[in-house]
Amino acid sequence: MIQHIPPRSGAAFRLRKGQRLTVIDPEGGQVADLCAFSAADSREVISNGRTIDYASRIFFTTGDPVYSNRSNVMFEIVEDDVGRHDFLLTPCSAEMFRKLYGDDQPHRGCFGNLAAALEPFGIAPDQIPVAFNIFMNVPVDGETGAISVEPPLSKAGDRFVIEARMDLIIGLTACSAPLSNGGSFKPIDYLIA
Amino acid sequence: MIQHIPPRSGAAFRLRKGQRLTVIDPEGGQVADLCAFSAADSREVISNGRTIDYASRIFFTTGDPVYSNRSNVMFEIVEDDVGRHDFLLTPCSAEMFRKLYGDDQPHRGCFGNLAAALEPFGIAPDQIPVAFNIFMNVPVDGETGAISVEPPLSKAGDRFVIEARMDLIIGLTACSAPLSNGGSFKPIDYLIA
Repeated sequence: MIQHIPPRSGAAFRLRKGQRLTVIDPEGGQVADLCAFSAADSREVISNGRTIDYASRIFFTTGDPVYSNRSNVMFEIVEDDVGRHDFLLTPCSAEMFRKLYGDDQPHRGCFGNLAAALEPFGIAPDQIPVAFNIFMNVPVDGETGAISVEPPLSKAGDRFVIEARMDLIIGLTACSAPLSNGGSFKPIDYLIA
Repeated sequence: MIQHIPPRSGAAFRLRKGQRLTVIDPEGGQVADLCAFSAADSREVISNGRTIDYASRIFFTTGDPVYSNRSNVMFEIVEDDVGRHDFLLTPCSAEMFRKLYGDDQPHRGCFGNLAAALEPFGIAPDQIPVAFNIFMNVPVDGETGAISVEPPLSKAGDRFVIEARMDLIIGLTACSAPLSNGGSFKPIDYLIA
């Protein structure tokens, strides 16, 4: 059954070893921040640093394993209609909206949405790492190191599918940052099978 | 007084707000992994994701603030003789030496050295984040996302200086990975003032 994450909100749920999580961009041009924790011990967490090191690459797609801070494979990417995602940036947050957008009364962002959704699983805000930002389009200039946040390349109905390699707790959002989704706030759908 | 970190080892120490840490590459071509924790609460930790997001850049040098997972400035880079460092990769580890070098009986790496040095401060191995890898030379291909680990650009005596913006616990290594330092294992010197 397809689950629905409304615009600027988030969800958390268990994904057992061998199960597949399908993340769908129902309208196109939206980002979903995904973070993952070991269900057995939430101190084991998704790690961009280990994943980049083992792949010798900062971009990931079908066939790529995603590692934890303990160097274990947490999940593998098994389908990807888009081919461009970000694994460099932390989830958008109230502090980020203050600093980068100048908001006086900022939204709590994906960070706040993840913190609220993960709280029932005993996961504290400080444990939220750099997320795997599905459909987020962040080109990197290899000469200067400059990055920019561009509209996602995803079209309506595009899918991104992972298969769990250990029992996981997943946090997932419909991104709250205007830049990430070209100024629109849209939902994200997902399916566990 | 200059402190000496022997090849393939590490150290940990306090750096008070306003103090400067000078990291020196005494022979040239060596890397020092630096991680930082708030002395008041070690759950507040250096964050590559926040620092990259706020700078819109993956490379950092003089004048750049480095942020924690709570979006506070932990330290600022105040001098930099080299201008190229890495903030993408996790410290080298036994698991990394197994996976990338095929070592059967791997060295514990910077990760193991940091874990041992930080243990007296009550910091657990799982808390060790992506480090700021001083002098580490990791070019990124903006088209493919491919990274490579190249010999550092540092020459003998080159310095990198940070000033603390909060009371910190610092972990610092003389890197253990052959690729990071062009196949040589060299010491790192540092000075607190």
